[in-house]
Amino acid sequence: MITVDLRSDTVTKPTAGMLEAMFNAKVGDDVFGDDETINQLEAKAAAMFGMEAGIYCPSGTMTNQIAIKCFTQPLDELIADQTAHVYRYEGGGIAFNSAVSTRLLNGYRGILTADMIEPEINAENVHYPHTSLVVLENTVNKGGGACYTLDQIKPIAELCQQRGLKLHLDGARIFNALAHTGDKAYDYGKYFDGISVCLSKGLGAPVGSVLLADKETIKYARRVRKVLGGGMRQAGFLAAAGIYALDHHVERLKNDHAHARIIAEALAASPAVTNVLPVETNIILFDTVDLADAVLQKLAAQGIHAMSTDKHRIRFVLHLDVHPEQVEHVVSVVKSL
Amino acid sequence: MITVDLRSDTVTKPTAGMLEAMFNAKVGDDVFGDDETINQLEAKAAAMFGMEAGIYCPSGTMTNQIAIKCFTQPLDELIADQTAHVYRYEGGGIAFNSAVSTRLLNGYRGILTADMIEPEINAENVHYPHTSLVVLENTVNKGGGACYTLDQIKPIAELCQQRGLKLHLDGARIFNALAHTGDKAYDYGKYFDGISVCLSKGLGAPVGSVLLADKETIKYARRVRKVLGGGMRQAGFLAAAGIYALDHHVERLKNDHAHARIIAEALAASPAVTNVLPVETNIILFDTVDLADAVLQKLAAQGIHAMSTDKHRIRFVLHLDVHPEQVEHVVSVVKSL
Amino acid sequence: MITVDLRSDTVTKPTAGMLEAMFNAKVGDDVFGDDETINQLEAKAAAMFGMEAGIYCPSGTMTNQIAIKCFTQPLDELIADQTAHVYRYEGGGIAFNSAVSTRLLNGYRGILTADMIEPEINAENVHYPHTSLVVLENTVNKGGGACYTLDQIKPIAELCQQRGLKLHLDGARIFNALAHTGDKAYDYGKYFDGISVCLSKGLGAPVGSVLLADKETIKYARRVRKVLGGGMRQAGFLAAAGIYALDHHVERLKNDHAHARIIAEALAASPAVTNVLPVETNIILFDTVDLADAVLQKLAAQGIHAMSTDKHRIRFVLHLDVHPEQVEHVVSVVKSL
Amino acid sequence: MITVDLRSDTVTKPTAGMLEAMFNAKVGDDVFGDDETINQLEAKAAAMFGMEAGIYCPSGTMTNQIAIKCFTQPLDELIADQTAHVYRYEGGGIAFNSAVSTRLLNGYRGILTADMIEPEINAENVHYPHTSLVVLENTVNKGGGACYTLDQIKPIAELCQQRGLKLHLDGARIFNALAHTGDKAYDYGKYFDGISVCLSKGLGAPVGSVLLADKETIKYARRVRKVLGGGMRQAGFLAAAGIYALDHHVERLKNDHAHARIIAEALAASPAVTNVLPVETNIILFDTVDLADAVLQKLAAQGIHAMSTDKHRIRFVLHLDVHPEQVEHVVSVVKSL
Repeated sequence: MITVDLRSDTVTKPTAGMLEAMFNAKVGDDVFGDDETINQLEAKAAAMFGMEAGIYCPSGTMTNQIAIKCFTQPLDELIADQTAHVYRYEGGGIAFNSAVSTRLLNGYRGILTADMIEPEINAENVHYPHTSLVVLENTVNKGGGACYTLDQIKPIAELCQQRGLKLHLDGARIFNALAHTGDKAYDYGKYFDGISVCLSKGLGAPVGSVLLADKETIKYARRVRKVLGGGMRQAGFLAAAGIYALDHHVERLKNDHAHARIIAEALAASPAVTNVLPVETNIILFDTVDLADAVLQKLAAQGIHAMSTDKHRIRFVLHLDVHPEQVEHVVSVVKSL
Repeated sequence: MITVDLRSDTVTKPTAGMLEAMFNAKVGDDVFGDDETINQLEAKAAAMFGMEAGIYCPSGTMTNQIAIKCFTQPLDELIADQTAHVYRYEGGGIAFNSAVSTRLLNGYRGILTADMIEPEINAENVHYPHTSLVVLENTVNKGGGACYTLDQIKPIAELCQQRGLKLHLDGARIFNALAHTGDKAYDYGKYFDGISVCLSKGLGAPVGSVLLADKETIKYARRVRKVLGGGMRQAGFLAAAGIYALDHHVERLKNDHAHARIIAEALAASPAVTNVLPVETNIILFDTVDLADAVLQKLAAQGIHAMSTDKHRIRFVLHLDVHPEQVEHVVSVVKSL
Repeated sequence: MITVDLRSDTVTKPTAGMLEAMFNAKVGDDVFGDDETINQLEAKAAAMFGMEAGIYCPSGTMTNQIAIKCFTQPLDELIADQTAHVYRYEGGGIAFNSAVSTRLLNGYRGILTADMIEPEINAENVHYPHTSLVVLENTVNKGGGACYTLDQIKPIAELCQQRGLKLHLDGARIFNALAHTGDKAYDYGKYFDGISVCLSKGLGAPVGSVLLADKETIKYARRVRKVLGGGMRQAGFLAAAGIYALDHHVERLKNDHAHARIIAEALAASPAVTNVLPVETNIILFDTVDLADAVLQKLAAQGIHAMSTDKHRIRFVLHLDVHPEQVEHVVSVVKSL
Repeated sequence: MITVDLRSDTVTKPTAGMLEAMFNAKVGDDVFGDDETINQLEAKAAAMFGMEAGIYCPSGTMTNQIAIKCFTQPLDELIADQTAHVYRYEGGGIAFNSAVSTRLLNGYRGILTADMIEPEINAENVHYPHTSLVVLENTVNKGGGACYTLDQIKPIAELCQQRGLKLHLDGARIFNALAHTGDKAYDYGKYFDGISVCLSKGLGAPVGSVLLADKETIKYARRVRKVLGGGMRQAGFLAAAGIYALDHHVERLKNDHAHARIIAEALAASPAVTNVLPVETNIILFDTVDLADAVLQKLAAQGIHAMSTDKHRIRFVLHLDVHPEQVEHVVSVVKSL
């Protein structure tokens, strides 16, 4: 039977080319700064996004949490959408790692605007935590892969500069956003103080994320990474996969988006489906007549594995281990629902 | 000129009788447990609310923050209304003191229901903080003094018991709620794990709040109070005011509520006012045609001091230092707006 | 029977003059900055110590803990003597409130020198917390009331300035130190970034401590006090006692020191006592042949109450509620041991 | 020129056999529990040490910090030697990650005894943090690789059980200790609540450490790992190296110890060396007549790289990338000093 794993784009396994790059990596003890492959990945990612420096970490949760620690102090508050990954899916890390409060907005599919943010910046008053950071997510995971364009980001960045706030991008799927919007990675560096770029989602590397910022911030980030236990030794084996992914797996993200649209059309036509959210990138969110868990069971019986995000909502995520014949299989199963 | 301070019910000064009680208090070093007036206040408040024990603290913020620390651990999440004092006006203390995340609900005038709370209790999953506490506020300050009845609280308490959550009451103005609903203080002990009772708001004591809970919790609360720096020495002078307030200033809260209704009627009739929120207790929230700050200036010129809570919203708070002739003055000034 | 409470200098009760000052205090809501007595106390204490500003708090633990928060950030380390009150007796607050590590020195009777401190300042390295603060205590409680002179403090202050460290004084008993050394309070402002001055120990006020620093620090300290729950309302009743104490109870501390020396001599002559530590101020530490608890029981039978600090060590603390006839009683009981 | 890297046993690079094992690893998304190689490593390490379960982390700092979080709560205190890695070299993580105080002992070469620990367990008192954990390190890094035997550990474990304390082992170099003492890994599970085992030091894996404990603790540890950002995806490539190391690199640690003794003898005979600390395992600490930095420069000129731990103290660490001919080179260079 054909098996299709649509649970997440984190489930991908290295391609043959990537594996070869990993096992030819030159490694060293990164705690001493001796791992040249990690150094190369950090510099490469920073240059791509127009930032000064980078730090490689074992997960996107860690790059986000380090960024939040770098850009806040205890008694501060950050502003984010109420669906934000940093708030919902990182174990309560904003409070745990940074002792920071969270002000939540209700963006459309998780997309915020400067007008929404401005009234939520606290006045100076001992009763209120001090607002010091805005976090955007692009694409928005819980928004079904919704994208910001740089034109949408610019006024938010300007507001942050005027009001002395830092601006961080949770770029777990930033390359999906770039593939959709046509914006250039390099231009992101003008607007953000920090950017987390995940290598282990659509890009297909097995492990890791890079935090990009200015040199001073990255220097401090190395202290935070150490105290969290994220300092690794000969991790160049993993970093090599990241370099390979940046070189070979960015362009192909468009295929995942095309696959998502094909499946979304089939879902929209299905009487078992009541609603399909707009599909911009590699994530499909749709609502089912029957309970999501029941539908998931039927899909699993046909080799299709996915997850529910609500009682009647299912998420499909496309990625580089889903090939055209598997897309066809999904379409045919959806038609039979 | 008549002066009326409607900024808050925290501005009251001790009456002659209260001052005399303070002056004659028997005090001792409370860190050694030797202050019999404090001991008496703690026992008296606990007995009133059907709880085992109490601890006297310098502020309601401290009793709330200690309760949250007692009922949570880092990596936990609490549920509260998005206007909750513990979230909005305690300096970001939930994250700072307890390293706990906050899940926010959008209650009607800050009043929550079990149906609203239940879906927000996180499933067990390493991505989510562990939901361990619900905090209610009665009356709701930002809800314009809106009240819960015990009948409304009961299903929430039952949900918490079923799901293993603790339930804390921010009772900064609990006696105003009791005066309005007719519920009995003693019955509150059945439903809550912790209750903060402020003595320095409508009750008119100069300083202090009591946290009520079971003996084990209060024992731990003494550790937390110490580390926060809230352990005082001969504070029986202040506790005596609290005892006096519980004996003499509870019944009279109805006067403040009556005063609030009188003023609210005048406001409702004013062309300068677009909306008056329902008045249940001693707080009036109303919206103004002109900017709130402009209206506040006009009021101040007539000796009436109040605060804005939004660009076009003003808050009046009645209390024991606002006497009938002052109420009349406010009404006449409102009519002239 | 004559009763003498030598457990601590925190057990004192207000004199008639102090009580009168308290009950004539002009008070207001200090959260709005309206309590003129508190404002006066803060300004008076700051002026005495040559500092810009002050903030009144319910305890010396709170002023110390706020100072530590003001002068550090998480990932930092402070240096203190291993007996320091901030480390040993404040509930673990350095880690709890500030997420800061503690490097401990082994000073002679708790007195540190610049030479001891310098090698413990961490080099810049991601493995080490960043050293940012030194805390001195004068007098040293666990050092038996041992004093620093300003001449001893000066080289420490210079080291801190050179290395970019802040210097905080836990001045719980600073007036005892001044009485002994003859140094001037005003000169302390030149050397310290923060000074905690307790009003409730030898000075005899019932409650409170003032933190002194520059204006910017005190502004931030008000945020920290709020989040810890230390913001009080009409606490001018207590502040008035503090003002009275500064005006009337400083000079008389020499009496307590004289009393301590008289009792220490009697102890030194007793066969039941193996060792009396040098007495400089109002604290006596002595070692007993029998177990301390047994000796304490005998003393209590004669109306003398004190505490042990180790299996064979007892602490006597003199204060303004110990009058000459009580000193005589203690001497006679000591002789009979 | 022959190059010898004696800076740390963390600098090793995978052998051909280890690389092959890594290359052939079966991987999956470990966040979903799908990485069978990681699952196998965790189970294998737990079984070796007689523990119920394990969790793989990117560093020994993370396994230690997670253990401390699992075994403490804020307001607690742990007891460790003043040289302990968890206190000195993990960035201040005890305070940062767990808000826990540290009580420090002065063990001989970092080795503690029950008699040293017992008096440092705090009595129950609101002034003191609650003692809840003892951390031992075996071998002791800063003690020059000094070892505990299980006979030495047993009375400490008994004390902990009697007093309700948890006992954690920082086993960064536990296999070096086992190689020296002849104790069995399996017996360690009887005495410790948690054990951190590093794979990236003497064992030669590129990255990683395993925390071992009972199932309930490891379940909670997964929450802590997530919030710290230590959850990795297809990290089975690294775990495979860990499994290989446990299978092939344990027995050979004796070679490193033999090499250390050979070099230590040469050092002891050198007039440039004033003192060589006892060598039990793979670490040599020795003191030099000249400044350590000057000696390090001379060594580097001969291809030998090491680090200083004090002005006149140098550390050599042996490991699997130091072969007999390199040992000979070191000996000859030492003789020429």
